[in-house]
Amino acid sequence: MKKWLDENLKKLNLTDVIPHPEGFTRLSFTKEEWKSREVFKEIARALGLLIREDEAGNVIARWNATKEQEQAPAIALGSHVDTVASGGGYDGVAGVLCALGAIKKLKDQDFKPAHPIEAICFVSEESARFGVSTIGSKAMAGLLDLEALKSVTDKNGVTVQEAVESYGLRYEEMEKAARTKEELLSFVELHIEQGVRVEDAGADYGAVTAIACPIRLVVEIEGKAGHTGTTPMDKRKDAFLIASKLALFINERANYWNTQGEYPIVATASTVEVGPNVMNVIPGKATLGVDIRSVDDQLKATLAEEIRTQCQSLMEQEHVIIRVNTLVNNRSIHLDPVVYQDLANIGDKVGLTCLTLESGAGHDVMNMQTKWPSGLIFIRCRDGLSHHPDEYASLEDLEKGVNLLSAYLDKKAGEQYEHTLRGSGTS
Amino acid sequence: MKKWLDENLKKLNLTDVIPHPEGFTRLSFTKEEWKSREVFKEIARALGLLIREDEAGNVIARWNATKEQEQAPAIALGSHVDTVASGGGYDGVAGVLCALGAIKKLKDQDFKPAHPIEAICFVSEESARFGVSTIGSKAMAGLLDLEALKSVTDKNGVTVQEAVESYGLRYEEMEKAARTKEELLSFVELHIEQGVRVEDAGADYGAVTAIACPIRLVVEIEGKAGHTGTTPMDKRKDAFLIASKLALFINERANYWNTQGEYPIVATASTVEVGPNVMNVIPGKATLGVDIRSVDDQLKATLAEEIRTQCQSLMEQEHVIIRVNTLVNNRSIHLDPVVYQDLANIGDKVGLTCLTLESGAGHDVMNMQTKWPSGLIFIRCRDGLSHHPDEYASLEDLEKGVNLLSAYLDKKAGEQYEHTLRGSGTS
Repeated sequence: MKKWLDENLKKLNLTDVIPHPEGFTRLSFTKEEWKSREVFKEIARALGLLIREDEAGNVIARWNATKEQEQAPAIALGSHVDTVASGGGYDGVAGVLCALGAIKKLKDQDFKPAHPIEAICFVSEESARFGVSTIGSKAMAGLLDLEALKSVTDKNGVTVQEAVESYGLRYEEMEKAARTKEELLSFVELHIEQGVRVEDAGADYGAVTAIACPIRLVVEIEGKAGHTGTTPMDKRKDAFLIASKLALFINERANYWNTQGEYPIVATASTVEVGPNVMNVIPGKATLGVDIRSVDDQLKATLAEEIRTQCQSLMEQEHVIIRVNTLVNNRSIHLDPVVYQDLANIGDKVGLTCLTLESGAGHDVMNMQTKWPSGLIFIRCRDGLSHHPDEYASLEDLEKGVNLLSAYLDKKAGEQYEHTLRGSGTS
Repeated sequence: MKKWLDENLKKLNLTDVIPHPEGFTRLSFTKEEWKSREVFKEIARALGLLIREDEAGNVIARWNATKEQEQAPAIALGSHVDTVASGGGYDGVAGVLCALGAIKKLKDQDFKPAHPIEAICFVSEESARFGVSTIGSKAMAGLLDLEALKSVTDKNGVTVQEAVESYGLRYEEMEKAARTKEELLSFVELHIEQGVRVEDAGADYGAVTAIACPIRLVVEIEGKAGHTGTTPMDKRKDAFLIASKLALFINERANYWNTQGEYPIVATASTVEVGPNVMNVIPGKATLGVDIRSVDDQLKATLAEEIRTQCQSLMEQEHVIIRVNTLVNNRSIHLDPVVYQDLANIGDKVGLTCLTLESGAGHDVMNMQTKWPSGLIFIRCRDGLSHHPDEYASLEDLEKGVNLLSAYLDKKAGEQYEHTLRGSGTS
C-alpha cells in the first residue's frame, strides 16, 4: 500500500519528486487542477470504478457491487486536488488519495459492499484564486449562488464564469450538480490536520466534531496624513498606531477567552494596508482584516463585539474615524454526531488512537454536512505546516488514513450488507 | 501685487482655477514639470531678467544692474516647481513665485541693486518619482553622484538617465551644473511651512535655523506564517503583532524625548508591509519603515539605538528574527547664522512677526548651504497641509513672503550698494 500511495501521491501532484521546494500551484479552474483531476480519474478507472463528472466539474468515482446499487444511495468519501499558490502536496490530495486507497484495500480483500461507495474529487476548494472557497462541494450540496459569484474575478480580472468555461463547463448549468438527499447515505472527508494538536496529544488521528467558521471584520481607520518631519508628535492622528493598538487588543482578548471557555478561540489581524505608505508621510489611513474563529459562535460574537467597542473607544480617545464592517459571519458547522462517533471508534479496530477536536479551517465536508450526515478525519502533518511547499504527511500517516477509511467503509457497508443479507434471508 | 501673485500662481500651476480638487502632478523630469519651468522663464523674461538653463535643467533668472555685475557674485533666491503625485500648488511654487515677486517689487520701485540678483527654479526637488530628492540643487552645489543615480528607476522602470534625456538634457553633463563658491554671495529659499508652528505661535513667518535630516530604518520581522484557524494562540509567531509593539514603542520613546531635550524629535513607523497579507494566514513577515528626525543628531542616534535594542529584546522574547537596516543617516544641516539673523530681523522692517524654528523636511536650501551661506523662510499654509490637493497658502501670506524677500534683497543688495557707493566714493 505504501508504494501505491507514494506513486499515486506523486501522480496526483503531477510530479516525479516529493519534496518539491517550489511547492505546487494548482489554482481553481486552471489546467493544472484539470490535469490532476484527470489523474484522479485514471487511478479510479484502474480500480474499476465508474467515472462521472458533474456540471460543476466534480468527479465522482463510484463502486457499484450489484446492478441494483446503480440507483442506490452511496457512502461517499472525498476531498479536492486544487491548491493555493506554492502550496503543499497533501492539502486535499491526501483526502482523495486515501479515499481511493481505502477502496483499493477493500477491493484487494474481495470485499462486497452492501451500498455503493463513492470517492469524490471536488473542484475548486481553495479560495486562493477567487477569494471563494469550496465551489465544487457547494454545487453538490445545492449551495451555489451563481448570481453572487458572477462579479467575482481573480487578480488578473478573469471572472469565475470565464475560468469555468475555459475549463469546459457551462457556467449557467453548474447548479445542476446539486444532488438529492436520497443519493448519499453519508460523507466522510479525510484531511491533513494543518495543526499539531493530534501529534501533541500523542494520538494517531483526529475525529472532528465541528468546523469553526469565521467572523471576518474589515476595520478602516481614518486618521490624518502629514509630513513625518514637520508634524509634531502631539499633533498627529497616525492611523497605523491605532491599528497597532487594535491588533494587540485583539490578540490579548483572544488569549483571555482561551483561559475562560470550553472551546478555543483564535483571532488574528491578518491583513494590513496603510496609506499612503511612503517614508515621509504619517499613515493617514489603515485597514485591518480580522479573522475570528471558534466553534462557539456565541464566543466569536462576543469577541467581535469587544472589538467594535474598542474601536468606538479609540475613535473617541484618538479623534479619528473608525468603520468596522462584517465581511463574513458564518455559523460554525457541527458535524453529524453518529458519523463522528463511528470515526472516533474506528481507531480501535485498526489499533490507532483518536483525539476528538474541532477544525479551525473550512473544508468541503462543511457543505456536505448541510445535506448529508458527514464526518471529518484529520491525519497528522509535520509541524502543522500547510499551504506551504514544506507541507508534509508521512506515508505511514497516509496509510493510517487508508486503514481508517477502509475500516469505516467496512463497518458501514459491511454492517448494512450483513443486515441486508439477514433481512432478505428472513423475509 | 496680489493680482500678479494670483495670476502667476495659476500660470505656474498650469491651471486657470485654484483650488484644484484632483491636485497637481508635475513629477521630476516630466513634460508637466517642463511646462511649468517654461512659465517660470516667461514670467522672468517679462520682468527683464536674463534666462540661463544649466546642464542639470535648473533655470537661473538673473538681474544684472550693471555691465560689471554680469561677472559678479549674486544674491540668489529660489525653489522648485515639480510636485508629488496629486500634490498642492504651493510646495515649491510659492518659493519661485515670491522670489520673482520680490524682484518685481524692487523693479517697480526702481531699485538699483549693488549685486546681481538671481531667482532660481531648481529641477526635480521631490523624491516622489525616483525616491531621490533635490536633484537640481545637488547638481548646482556639486553634490550630484551620477554613478549612484545610474541604477535608480521610477515605478515604471524608467531610469533617471532616460527621463533626463527625454527632457532634452545630457545625463553625463549634469555635473557641469556645479557652480563655484565665488558665483553666489548667499542663497535664500522661501517655502510653505508644511506645519502649523508659525500659526500656533501667532507669528507671520518662520526663520529656520536648521534642517532635521532623517535617520531611516527598515525593520524586517520574520515570524512564522500559519493558518489563522488551525494555529492556536499560544503557538504563534505573528510578525505583525511584533511590528505593532515596535510602532507603539517608537511613538512612546519619541514622545518621551520631547519632554527631555532642547530640540524636538519626531519618529514615525510610516510604511508597513506584511506577508502573505491574506485573511486566513497569520502574518509570517512584517517590514516597517521608520523615519526619525531632529536637528539634534545625537538625539536621533539615541532613539535609533533604542529601537535596535528593543528589536533585540523582541527577538529574544518572541523567538523571531528581526533585522534592522539603516537606509539613510543624514546629518542635520545647520543654516548660516548670519543669514538666519537677517531673515529673523527683516520682519521688523515690514511689520511682520517671526518665529524661530527648525525644518522637519528637507529643501533645496540644504544643498545650497553646503557651499553658500543660506537661509530659509517659512510662510504659513492652511492646517499645515502639504503634498495634498487641499494644500493652501493665502494670497496675503504669499504677499508677506514677497515683502520679506524684497526687504531682504533691499537690505543685502542695498546695504552693499550703499557700501559700494560709499567705498567707491571715498577711494
